[in-house]
Amino acid sequence: MPVDLPPGLAVVLRFDRSGFIPAVAQDHASGEVLMLAWMNAESIAATLASGFATYWSRSRKALWRKGETSGHTQRLVEFRIDCDGDAILLRVEQTGPACHTGRRTCFFRAMHDGALTEID
Amino acid sequence: MPVDLPPGLAVVLRFDRSGFIPAVAQDHASGEVLMLAWMNAESIAATLASGFATYWSRSRKALWRKGETSGHTQRLVEFRIDCDGDAILLRVEQTGPACHTGRRTCFFRAMHDGALTEID
Repeated sequence: MPVDLPPGLAVVLRFDRSGFIPAVAQDHASGEVLMLAWMNAESIAATLASGFATYWSRSRKALWRKGETSGHTQRLVEFRIDCDGDAILLRVEQTGPACHTGRRTCFFRAMHDGALTEID
Repeated sequence: MPVDLPPGLAVVLRFDRSGFIPAVAQDHASGEVLMLAWMNAESIAATLASGFATYWSRSRKALWRKGETSGHTQRLVEFRIDCDGDAILLRVEQTGPACHTGRRTCFFRAMHDGALTEID
């Protein structure tokens, strides 16, 4: 399906062989890194058009508007790309927890003193 | 080559079919998201052992200790993984710019008013 992306953006995006780009969601106010998910052209267009983070679910092979069932939406504050065009940073306003486990961030485990520890 | 990873970490890591996991580097003090790169088991072990962010260069097919030529190293402050074990967050102390273009972060372009704009 042809997807309308802003021309200036389309020319710099570099999708992987499967048509995906990794996208990092960051809380725009706290700076906390919330999650990493995947976007294709369709989900990028949907995110920019709707103003809400919309990923591509690789398991369901479908658009995944974050929070569509949980209500834990991510309002888009700023859409950024990196120097190579192969990574996306979404600065968002997160409603509720970002993680399906109920934690604020998906990155709630860290190596401390050589062991994996829950920090949230 | 067999790689020694802490057992508690090894069991939860989920590498992709090529043996990689995307890794996000974040400035531990400012919260700024600096870059996204890729790690394999060897680079994770090297990062944990050395205390400096070490990625896998998919183009050079080699370990890439960030800053090995530029001096722009990333001292590891905290190594985190996400709920699914398929994304890594490195909280780091960045020396100099993270981006090869000389900018502090690789994410220096954003969509503003429908157009891609340099913000750094």
